[in-house]
Amino acid sequence: MQGSENGNGKPGAAISRGVFMGGLGTAGALLATGCNTPKPSNVASAGGPTPGAAGAVLSGDARKIAEARGLAPADVVAALKTYVPSGKTDEYYMFASGGHSGQVLVVGLPSMRLLKVIPVFSPESYGGWGFSEGSHAVLEGGAVDGRLITHGDTHHPAFSETDGDYDGKFVFINDKVNARVAVIDLRDFECKQIVKNPVIISNHGHCVTPNTEYVIETSQYAVPPGWKPAAVTKSAYANEYRGAMTFWKFDRPKGRIDPQRSFVLELPPYWQDLTDAGKLASEGWAFCNSINTELAVPEDWNNGPSMEISASRNDMDFLHVVNWKAAESLVRSGRVSQKNGIAYIPIDQAVREGLLYLVPEPKSPHGVDITPDGKFIVVCGKLDPHVSIYSIAKIKQAIAKGGMHKDPYGIPIVNFEDALVTQIKVGLGPLHNQFDDKGNGYTSLFLDSAVTRWTVGDESGKGWNLVETLPVQYNVGHVAAPHGDTVKPRGGYLVALNKWSLDRFVPVGPFYPRNLQLIDTSGQQLQLLYDMGIGMAEPHYAQIIDAKLVKPEDIYPPNTDVFTLKPDPKAPVFGKEGTSDHGDHVEVNMTVMRSTFRPDVVRVERGKRVIWRINNVETAKNAIHGFALAGHNISLSLEPGKVETIEIVADRPGTYPYYCTDFCSALHLELMGYFVVT
Amino acid sequence: MQGSENGNGKPGAAISRGVFMGGLGTAGALLATGCNTPKPSNVASAGGPTPGAAGAVLSGDARKIAEARGLAPADVVAALKTYVPSGKTDEYYMFASGGHSGQVLVVGLPSMRLLKVIPVFSPESYGGWGFSEGSHAVLEGGAVDGRLITHGDTHHPAFSETDGDYDGKFVFINDKVNARVAVIDLRDFECKQIVKNPVIISNHGHCVTPNTEYVIETSQYAVPPGWKPAAVTKSAYANEYRGAMTFWKFDRPKGRIDPQRSFVLELPPYWQDLTDAGKLASEGWAFCNSINTELAVPEDWNNGPSMEISASRNDMDFLHVVNWKAAESLVRSGRVSQKNGIAYIPIDQAVREGLLYLVPEPKSPHGVDITPDGKFIVVCGKLDPHVSIYSIAKIKQAIAKGGMHKDPYGIPIVNFEDALVTQIKVGLGPLHNQFDDKGNGYTSLFLDSAVTRWTVGDESGKGWNLVETLPVQYNVGHVAAPHGDTVKPRGGYLVALNKWSLDRFVPVGPFYPRNLQLIDTSGQQLQLLYDMGIGMAEPHYAQIIDAKLVKPEDIYPPNTDVFTLKPDPKAPVFGKEGTSDHGDHVEVNMTVMRSTFRPDVVRVERGKRVIWRINNVETAKNAIHGFALAGHNISLSLEPGKVETIEIVADRPGTYPYYCTDFCSALHLELMGYFVVT
Repeated sequence: MQGSENGNGKPGAAISRGVFMGGLGTAGALLATGCNTPKPSNVASAGGPTPGAAGAVLSGDARKIAEARGLAPADVVAALKTYVPSGKTDEYYMFASGGHSGQVLVVGLPSMRLLKVIPVFSPESYGGWGFSEGSHAVLEGGAVDGRLITHGDTHHPAFSETDGDYDGKFVFINDKVNARVAVIDLRDFECKQIVKNPVIISNHGHCVTPNTEYVIETSQYAVPPGWKPAAVTKSAYANEYRGAMTFWKFDRPKGRIDPQRSFVLELPPYWQDLTDAGKLASEGWAFCNSINTELAVPEDWNNGPSMEISASRNDMDFLHVVNWKAAESLVRSGRVSQKNGIAYIPIDQAVREGLLYLVPEPKSPHGVDITPDGKFIVVCGKLDPHVSIYSIAKIKQAIAKGGMHKDPYGIPIVNFEDALVTQIKVGLGPLHNQFDDKGNGYTSLFLDSAVTRWTVGDESGKGWNLVETLPVQYNVGHVAAPHGDTVKPRGGYLVALNKWSLDRFVPVGPFYPRNLQLIDTSGQQLQLLYDMGIGMAEPHYAQIIDAKLVKPEDIYPPNTDVFTLKPDPKAPVFGKEGTSDHGDHVEVNMTVMRSTFRPDVVRVERGKRVIWRINNVETAKNAIHGFALAGHNISLSLEPGKVETIEIVADRPGTYPYYCTDFCSALHLELMGYFVVT
Repeated sequence: MQGSENGNGKPGAAISRGVFMGGLGTAGALLATGCNTPKPSNVASAGGPTPGAAGAVLSGDARKIAEARGLAPADVVAALKTYVPSGKTDEYYMFASGGHSGQVLVVGLPSMRLLKVIPVFSPESYGGWGFSEGSHAVLEGGAVDGRLITHGDTHHPAFSETDGDYDGKFVFINDKVNARVAVIDLRDFECKQIVKNPVIISNHGHCVTPNTEYVIETSQYAVPPGWKPAAVTKSAYANEYRGAMTFWKFDRPKGRIDPQRSFVLELPPYWQDLTDAGKLASEGWAFCNSINTELAVPEDWNNGPSMEISASRNDMDFLHVVNWKAAESLVRSGRVSQKNGIAYIPIDQAVREGLLYLVPEPKSPHGVDITPDGKFIVVCGKLDPHVSIYSIAKIKQAIAKGGMHKDPYGIPIVNFEDALVTQIKVGLGPLHNQFDDKGNGYTSLFLDSAVTRWTVGDESGKGWNLVETLPVQYNVGHVAAPHGDTVKPRGGYLVALNKWSLDRFVPVGPFYPRNLQLIDTSGQQLQLLYDMGIGMAEPHYAQIIDAKLVKPEDIYPPNTDVFTLKPDPKAPVFGKEGTSDHGDHVEVNMTVMRSTFRPDVVRVERGKRVIWRINNVETAKNAIHGFALAGHNISLSLEPGKVETIEIVADRPGTYPYYCTDFCSALHLELMGYFVVT
C-alpha cells in the first residue's frame, strides 16, 4: 500500500499530539520519523496550567472566581473565547440536523446557544407547523404512498451555494427514513417545501452542487425502485433492488425544487452513503461512498450472519463517481425514460453514456469530502485507520485511458492505485472530514473518540501529514467547520458532533443528551472550548456559515402568505373582520393586534366546516401573537404581518376560549375570545 | 394608602440602583429620602471597568483574548461565573415550561445549556412520543371530549415537595389551552400521565401543596362548567359561567394523579390566575389572583369596548383565599356532589363551610407568592406599581371577627386594610415574585423591563424596602430562583424569563428567540451574567432545583415497561424473537443489540394488523437505539432496558427498511432490516 503512514495513530492511543509548525515540512518530517514529542493534554477539564495558548494568567477578582469555581487556566481561556455578552452577537450560525426529531437546529457560534428550532418534517405546535393549512400542505408534499408522515430523520443540512461557497439564502435538509428533501428559506428561516423521492424509500447522502443547480440526494438502503414488494434473498436483492442518486433541480427564483426538471441516476444496490459534489477542479462531478458492496441481505438472523458481519466482509467498497453535467445534458436531450413520474437513467444507459464509474475505497466508508480546491477526494473508511486521498485528475486520466474492469452491473472500475494519491493513518474509525483556511484537513475518529488535524498536500502525495489528535467525549460522528464544505473555508473552529455524553452533564435519565464540542483550531494546538449538551435527538451533521452572510427579514410585510412570501389576496382586512355563513361552511376573517382579536366572539352552528383566517396586523418587530383554540387541536404562531388559515369542523357543541399564547403586552391575558358551537 | 413607598420607581426610570447595606435599615432610610446615588450600570455589555464584584483584572493571555473579543471587565466576570468546563457539571436544574410547544425544557445552571426537551402534550418523534402505544395512551388521557389533542400550552412547572421544599421526585406541568395536568417522573425524566379537567376548559394557576398532597389547577377563562354552549352576554356570563380551583390528589407511591380522590371547588367567573399554596404559617390554605372581577365579556368588538379595556376597569380585583384542608375534610365526609365524574363543591356550599374568602388586590394582578416562612402573601398587580403584602395572620383574624361584606356570589370579602401589611412601590408592571436565602424578595417588572430586589419585612409593615432595580432585555415575565417557591430558598441566582429579544442575537427571521437572562444575586449588586436564547416557544415559567436532589436512573433495568417502570410481562426475550400469525393480527417480538435487529426481516400479508414489540437488550448506559420504519409513520427511542410496542396496519404492499436512528457503533448503519408487505 502506498502513502506515508504518519503520526502515532496506533489503535487505542488516546492522545497523539504533534507540533504544528506552520510550514508543514519540518513538522511532517518530525512526525514521519516518530520524533513528535507528546504534549500535555489541553482538554479544558484537565487541571493545572498548560503552556502557550491554553494558559491564562488572572489576577484580582477574576482569579478569585476562577479559583472558587475550580477553573483551570485552559478553562479560563475557553470561557473567554466562547462567552458572548448581552448585546453582542455570535460570529457564525451552525445549522444542525435535528436527527430523528425531524427538525433543524440553529445554533450561534462560539456561544453554542440554540437560537431556533426550525420545524420541518414533524408537526410542531409552537410554530403552528402542521396545524395551519399552509404548513399542512407542505407536510402533505412529503406523504409516502398517500400516507401523511409526521416525523423525520434529518441528516445533512446543506446551504445553498454560489460559486462553491455558502450564500446564505437557503438550507436543504434530507429525511433519511422516507427519502425526502425539504427546502428552508433563510428569508424567514421557515420550511417551504418537502418533496418525496418517487423511486427510493431511504436516503443518506445529501449535498448541493456549487451553484445550487441541483440538490443531490443519494439512497441508503436499497429497495426495488418504487419500493414495491420483493423477496429478501441474495438473488432477488442483486436483481431487483437498486440504489439511486437523485438530482433535484432547484429553481432559485421560485425558491422551490422543481420535480419536473429533476432526474434519477440508478445505482447498484451497494447501500450508497455520504455524497459530495465536486467543485473547481472537479466541478460537474459527484462522489458517493458505499458500504455494502457485498450485496448482503438480512438472512433471518438465526439462520445466518447478521448484516453487521455480512455487509463488512469486503476490504474494499466502491466510491461512485458520477458525471452529473453529462447526465444533465442527457436528460435535457430527452433520451431518458421515466419512473414514477421522474426522469430515470438506468445503470446500463449511465454506463453507455459515460456517466458512472467506480473506484475501490477502504472499508465501510462514511465521509467523502472534496478539498477546497476541488482537486482531491478524501474518503474515510470507518473500518480502516486511514483517510484515502484520490485525485480527480488521476480519475479522469484513468477514465480517458479506458480498459477498466467492470463490476457485476457493468460499471467500469478505476484501479485503486490509478486514482489514489496517498493515505494518512489517522486512527480508528475515521468518519468525516472538514477543511480550514490554513491548508488543514480534519477527520473525526469514531472509535478513538478523537478529532485529528492533518495537512493537505499535493498531487504527488507529498505534504499529507497527520499533525495532531485531540480526544473528545465521546463517539464523535461528523465534524463541522465554518464553510468547511466550500471552496473558501473560514477556519478557526471545529465542532465535534458527539453521540454519547456519559458523565458530561447532570443526569437527565436513561436518554442522555448529545454533546456538541466546540474546538478552537486557530492556535498551534487544538483546544476544546465548550461542551454543548443537546437534550433532543442526535444532531447528525451541521454546516456553519458566517453570520454576516445571512440576512433574514426581521418582520413580514403586511398581509404576508408565508409560503409564497407574497401578499395573501384573502388576508383579512382590519376594520372589515367578521364571520359569514356560506351554507356548507362558515368563513371567519379575523385580525389580531394588541390586545384584541376581531371578532372576539365566533358563533357557529354544530356541524359546520369553518375556514378561519387570521392576520396579525401588528407592524412592530417581534410583536408575535400565538393563537390557540381550546378543544379543537389548533395552535398557530402569528408573527407580525403573517396570515394563517385553519380549517376545523364544529362538531362538538360547547364554549371554547381562544387566546394569544405568546406574551405580547401587559394585557396579553385579555387577548382572547369565545368560539361558541351551538 | 398605608405602606412605605420606597425607591425611585417612577415610570420610565430605566435604572434604579440602590445600595444594599446588609442591615437594611440604613439603605431603606437612604432610599426613602431619595438619597440613593445611582451607580454605573453593571449590565454585562456595558463597556469600561465597573467597581466591586462587577470588575475583573486580567493579565497575560486572558487579557489579550478579552481585548480581542471586546469583553468588558464585567463580561469577564460573567464568563467565569457561567462557564462549566468539560467534565464538570451544573449546580442546578431549571425546569422551564416549553410554552406552546407543549413540552418541558430542562436547563443546567449556571451554564444555561438545554439538556433535555421532555415531550409532554405534543407528539415528539425523537422520543417516540405519540408513536408508541404506551405514549399514545398517555396522550389519549388528555383527550378533550373524545378528541385527541396534539399540542399544549405549558405554563407552570411545579416540583413535588416534601415539607415545603422541592424533593426532586416529580414535576407537574399544566396545559393552559385545554385545562390539563401532566406528571413527569424524575426517575427517568419522562411524562407518565396526562389528566383532563372534566369541568373547565382552560387553566393558568398551577402549584403543589407542601407535601404534594394535591396538585392545584386553577381556571383562567371562565366557561359553563363542563364547557357546554352558552350565550356570550353579560347576564349569561354572570349566571352560567364559572371558574374553579381543582385539587388533583397525587398518589406518590403510584406516581399518578388519582381523579377519584380529587375535587373541584367552584369559583366565580373572575378569570382566576396564578395560584400558590400556603406553607408553614399558611399551610392548609391556597391563594389565587383574579383579573376580570368586572365580569366583562367579549362584546362583538365593533359594538363595544374590547376585553383589554372592559376587563381592566376596576382598581381592585380579588385575591381568592381557600381553606383546602377544610375542603378536603368536607370531600372525605362525602357531603359533596359530583360534576362530570369529579367531586364538586359549588360556591354556596364553599361559603357555608367557610372554605372560600376574597381579599381586594390592586389591579389585574399576576403573581401571588408566599414568603418562605409562610406568613405573607405577596401580590403584584400588573397595572399597579406596587407589590402588596398581605398577612395570613391578619386574614385569619378578619375571618374570625366576621361581619364581612359579600361579593355578588355571596363570598365574604376581607377588608383590604384588614389584610394588608404594606406595599412596596417597585415600578411599572410588577408581574411575579421570588425569594432568596438572605431575606430578599424579587419582583419582575414587565413594563419597565427590569427586576427588582426588596427586603422581606415583618408583620408590622417595617423592613419592606426596595433595594435595587436591574434592567433586563426585554419584557420580563416570570422570574425563577433556586428553590424560590419553597420554605428554603437557596439564593445566588435569578433567571428573568424575557419575552422579546430584539437586537440580542443574530437574526433568525420574524420569529425571534426568547431570552432567559441569568442574574447573579449573590453580591451587593445584581449582575447580569448570561443571555440564553431559546429558539422555540416562550418558556412561561420555570422552577430551579439543586442538582444534588435529583437522582434519576441512568439506565432502565432489563425489560422495563417505561410507563409502569416495572418489568413488562410481554417483553421480547433474547433468543426467542420472531413473528407469529394470530389470524386477525401478526405479532412481532424483536430485540435490538449492537448491531442486529432480531428478526431482521419481517414479512406480513397485506391487510394484517401488526403488534410489534421491541426490547433494547443492551446493558450499557447510553447505548440508545432508535427505531424508524419507512412508510408507516413510526419513530421510537429505545434506551437500554426499554420495551416499546407499536401497532400498525400493513395496508400498502412494499419493501420498507427499518433501521436504528441513534448512532450506536461503527456498524450503526448496518443495524437495519426489511419489513415486506406482500
